Amino acid sequence: MATALILLAAGLGSRMNSDRQKVLHEIAGAPLLAHALRSGMTLEPERVVVVAGHGAEAVGAAAADWVPDAQVVIQAEQLGTGHAVAQAREALADFAGDAVVLYGDTPLLRPETLAAMTRARAEHDIVVLGFEAADPARYGRLLTEGDSLIRIVEWKDASPEERDITLCNSGLLCADAQTLLSLVGDLSNDNVSGEYYLTDVPALARAQGLTATVVRCDEAETLGVNTRADLAAAEAAFQAGARTGMMAEGVTMTAPETVFLAFDTVIGRETLVEPNVVFGPGVTVESGATIRAFSHLEGCHVSRGGVVGPYARLRPGAELAENVRIGNFVEVKNAQIAEGAKVNHLSYIGDADIGPKTNIGAGTITCNYDGVFKHRTKIGAGAFIGSNTMLVAPVTVGADAMTASGSVITSDVPAGDLALARSKQVNKPGLARRLMETLRARKRTGG
Amino acid sequence: MATALILLAAGLGSRMNSDRQKVLHEIAGAPLLAHALRSGMTLEPERVVVVAGHGAEAVGAAAADWVPDAQVVIQAEQLGTGHAVAQAREALADFAGDAVVLYGDTPLLRPETLAAMTRARAEHDIVVLGFEAADPARYGRLLTEGDSLIRIVEWKDASPEERDITLCNSGLLCADAQTLLSLVGDLSNDNVSGEYYLTDVPALARAQGLTATVVRCDEAETLGVNTRADLAAAEAAFQAGARTGMMAEGVTMTAPETVFLAFDTVIGRETLVEPNVVFGPGVTVESGATIRAFSHLEGCHVSRGGVVGPYARLRPGAELAENVRIGNFVEVKNAQIAEGAKVNHLSYIGDADIGPKTNIGAGTITCNYDGVFKHRTKIGAGAFIGSNTMLVAPVTVGADAMTASGSVITSDVPAGDLALARSKQVNKPGLARRLMETLRARKRTGG
Amino acid sequence: MATALILLAAGLGSRMNSDRQKVLHEIAGAPLLAHALRSGMTLEPERVVVVAGHGAEAVGAAAADWVPDAQVVIQAEQLGTGHAVAQAREALADFAGDAVVLYGDTPLLRPETLAAMTRARAEHDIVVLGFEAADPARYGRLLTEGDSLIRIVEWKDASPEERDITLCNSGLLCADAQTLLSLVGDLSNDNVSGEYYLTDVPALARAQGLTATVVRCDEAETLGVNTRADLAAAEAAFQAGARTGMMAEGVTMTAPETVFLAFDTVIGRETLVEPNVVFGPGVTVESGATIRAFSHLEGCHVSRGGVVGPYARLRPGAELAENVRIGNFVEVKNAQIAEGAKVNHLSYIGDADIGPKTNIGAGTITCNYDGVFKHRTKIGAGAFIGSNTMLVAPVTVGADAMTASGSVITSDVPAGDLALARSKQVNKPGLARRLMETLRARKRTGG
Repeated sequence: MATALILLAAGLGSRMNSDRQKVLHEIAGAPLLAHALRSGMTLEPERVVVVAGHGAEAVGAAAADWVPDAQVVIQAEQLGTGHAVAQAREALADFAGDAVVLYGDTPLLRPETLAAMTRARAEHDIVVLGFEAADPARYGRLLTEGDSLIRIVEWKDASPEERDITLCNSGLLCADAQTLLSLVGDLSNDNVSGEYYLTDVPALARAQGLTATVVRCDEAETLGVNTRADLAAAEAAFQAGARTGMMAEGVTMTAPETVFLAFDTVIGRETLVEPNVVFGPGVTVESGATIRAFSHLEGCHVSRGGVVGPYARLRPGAELAENVRIGNFVEVKNAQIAEGAKVNHLSYIGDADIGPKTNIGAGTITCNYDGVFKHRTKIGAGAFIGSNTMLVAPVTVGADAMTASGSVITSDVPAGDLALARSKQVNKPGLARRLMETLRARKRTGG
Repeated sequence: MATALILLAAGLGSRMNSDRQKVLHEIAGAPLLAHALRSGMTLEPERVVVVAGHGAEAVGAAAADWVPDAQVVIQAEQLGTGHAVAQAREALADFAGDAVVLYGDTPLLRPETLAAMTRARAEHDIVVLGFEAADPARYGRLLTEGDSLIRIVEWKDASPEERDITLCNSGLLCADAQTLLSLVGDLSNDNVSGEYYLTDVPALARAQGLTATVVRCDEAETLGVNTRADLAAAEAAFQAGARTGMMAEGVTMTAPETVFLAFDTVIGRETLVEPNVVFGPGVTVESGATIRAFSHLEGCHVSRGGVVGPYARLRPGAELAENVRIGNFVEVKNAQIAEGAKVNHLSYIGDADIGPKTNIGAGTITCNYDGVFKHRTKIGAGAFIGSNTMLVAPVTVGADAMTASGSVITSDVPAGDLALARSKQVNKPGLARRLMETLRARKRTGG
Repeated sequence: MATALILLAAGLGSRMNSDRQKVLHEIAGAPLLAHALRSGMTLEPERVVVVAGHGAEAVGAAAADWVPDAQVVIQAEQLGTGHAVAQAREALADFAGDAVVLYGDTPLLRPETLAAMTRARAEHDIVVLGFEAADPARYGRLLTEGDSLIRIVEWKDASPEERDITLCNSGLLCADAQTLLSLVGDLSNDNVSGEYYLTDVPALARAQGLTATVVRCDEAETLGVNTRADLAAAEAAFQAGARTGMMAEGVTMTAPETVFLAFDTVIGRETLVEPNVVFGPGVTVESGATIRAFSHLEGCHVSRGGVVGPYARLRPGAELAENVRIGNFVEVKNAQIAEGAKVNHLSYIGDADIGPKTNIGAGTITCNYDGVFKHRTKIGAGAFIGSNTMLVAPVTVGADAMTASGSVITSDVPAGDLALARSKQVNKPGLARRLMETLRARKRTGG
């Protein structure tokens, strides 16, 4: 059965107190709507329709980052969730199959839950996603008989008995696309708000002789973001789940509550992650590596046996081969570090290729920027870069070459050569004592 | 109505296991007594009396840091809270108005609560601050009839029925100053401890024909610090409240539980604070800035569009204009960084003025200290400071000037000039290989 | 009474999803079995027998790291806990005294609890450690009459009434060694699993006319590790207890939940530990020191009045005398830093001796490694090392000597001398502007 996604992303999100659209706020390194889309994409939909309103251009652009062929339709006026779904009519006019209604501000839905919804369509015309609420509060309630959903009743319209129901409405819904579009076209806005509610669809469907049912999920999956505190709560829920999943797959985390993962972080089995590590998007770590405390990784790859940190920053394009060692206060960006190479202390390695088993001394800097262009540094295998070497790119240091500590290397160094750029040391007898006495005297006299 | 504060700060705090006075231990970058005073100062009191005992000199000095005209009175012997209040008699002898009794070890009282207490004085002679205790345990209980407070009963003196009361005594109290001083003068110490208890004041007042009432606050506000674990709990409560408040005002915190704020931190709307950021006192961040992970800020200002960190340390006097970028492993102290300037990697910028759009290369250091004096570095607009430049202050680099990587700059560089202080590179053919062979041979032979 | 420990450490731990033996996974910087052994060693046992199975060689080696004369016996087949204890028969054949059975995957047992077990042996033949379970779930239940333990019943064999019992079996047990070995020899494996269960020992003992009793501990002490999530939970429990203990002893922790301690961390009274500090093994901090945020310490010593961090990394062998200051982005390894010396910024100090009151400028590096050997740097008292000095070891800088900023020091500097190794600065008029114009033009023309 072909599937289409209808992602509702038109809301203003005024409680975010933000100039940015709510669905563009991020958790785990990706905007909220991307999380919803990523879950939805596991259904392998043939079409994706994003209903945008406030800030439609930005919302559309963000959606396209994740689903390039998503169609953005505009809900010019915010007349309710039913009205929002109706905006997909033209985009789905020729579509045969099921439509799943998702929300751009509900990022934690599991793929398994969406799959269960589409499976339930085999037996029912309308499938609504519900959850047993620990504290049902003002959620809409799902009135059921057996496995049939009779109707959804909003809290404010519910009788005391109905309020005792704990099975609540998540808002997600799945139905044949044409049926759904027909039903939302039949909705009435004869209510206090004057809006068209998607929640009226199941009762309307039953009135038309169709059937409806409920698929249940964990309440946690339905967490919707309306405030920045909700955003932090969604981040926390994402992180808790991701950490638990990684530990189950064989990653050791000393203090999982201090490790922050991105939506796409991959960490291999038997890798140790120490406290206070932040993973931005695009990181893969192979098995048997160690990510030490206070490290920060984005868009990089760490191979088997690699040891990173403490206080290492790997930026996009840092590619570490096996058994590479990146130590404290070291930044690596857009650089290939070959097997067994070491950059242990206080260095900046950017736009560089470092050969296998090469040792980069403390305080080494690849001077990759001339104020306008970026240039590349290439260092061969088994080289020894002395402490505080400046490598003024473009420059190449050959295999087994050395640079003397404190040298500024502006020309290539052939393999096996030692490059020096250094002044002779001169000791001025007694001068330090005289200088210091002069300074102290000046201080005493206030001068 | 004029108001006076009486801050009780005489206790030993022996359970702190500390040589320092309890009220001088800090949360959120300020001593406990400062938090109580700051809340009290929102009442705009005409007089502030600090009752000190143990370590009175240090306590008085700390109080004066926050309320310069606070009067410190000494409670030479610790004869109970009533006796402590009585020490304010002389300082308030000529004072007409209300007195509010605060505690130096109770830092979380909200200004709104104190305001409610003073308002309640319109209808009652004595106003006691109470709270509904989740677990009343051994707190004193407040016995009320309607809105009248009959008396305060200590737990050890309470009947079983009285112990069922959950409305508990915070210790805070507000009354006409002269009435209060008269009442504490009438207290008896005819009890097991031989102390004069402020808790006896309401019953005594009623016996003299006065009225008493209770104002309620959240239990959390009454958290008193008696141990270092309490101190950590007060810190945690402060932080939780401050983080929530900031998120409501439009700040995004990826992981609020990892962000530590000071009592006076100001962060603008739409600013993003990543995980693991510590704010010391005196930090203001404008709207639309980004404070990246693992950053540490104290006494500094970050303007709109600024991006700080990860691993940036801004120390007192760091003033960043709009769109400044401070990157990883960079320390900035007592320095003005003008609009659009960048200090991206591994640098120390102290006692400096950096011009707009200037780029500071990796590993740059302002050598501001000669062993006795500190000197200033001035760099003009649009300059390009090469990697690992040492700027030996006092020194000035003109607009659009450049320094060559690895140069030690000891003299001024005119605008537009290129300054070099560099030795010529020499490559010694094959010497690296020969040196390494020699060393390895020596290792093999154990020499 | 002489005591022997029998540590059961033969289990596979397949739920760890690890190639490493379960008992070798670490919390607080030491393997799980070391925690159990360390608790057991407080009983001053005369013999320690480790029953290993899977990965016996690695387990034995790890045990020997902590208890050099531990005897490792092999349980070749995993036939139950009773069978495991029986493997100690030969090792304890000539031993007279009590045996205490511990588990290598149960790291949180308090010494006081083990002592209570051995004391209880005065009155009973068999002492079992039990705990009141908050949620007894599928734990074995302890059936008691008065202070006698009748038998241990496994959950699956328990009647509904027995399942109502909340006193549960920890698995730990103490008895006369020969009695215990005799009893485990009498166990039957006539059960569904075909295994010999240590839990059958109390009933068997009673059948032979012996007595058994229960000593109770906190449930938290009995936490056993079966998954990496359990490992993280054990780490969290250890940390919570250790932090609380330190605060009680007079250490201030701003945010204790962000401080990670090792099994052997010692911190003196009145020391302040700021947020986000990681202590590896082997750290001692004296009273009245300050460990600032984002610091990482391993195998080092900080003396009274020392201030470390933020962002300081102290590695093994860093020995800081009184009032030493180690600042941000500074790494210290195998170095003695004498009283009042300062290393404030962006430095690497390895294999060095730094004299009292010496000031090490920003960006200083001890070049201790020549590619094969490590060499030592020695700096006298009151020296002033200019910023970005490279100290090419072996090298000695005398008392009160100075080095000029940016110098590479390859020869010794006598006391009081000023050493320079620096090129003369040359300013090329207008060259910076011309260079930048050329680069920008090239960019515009795409070249």
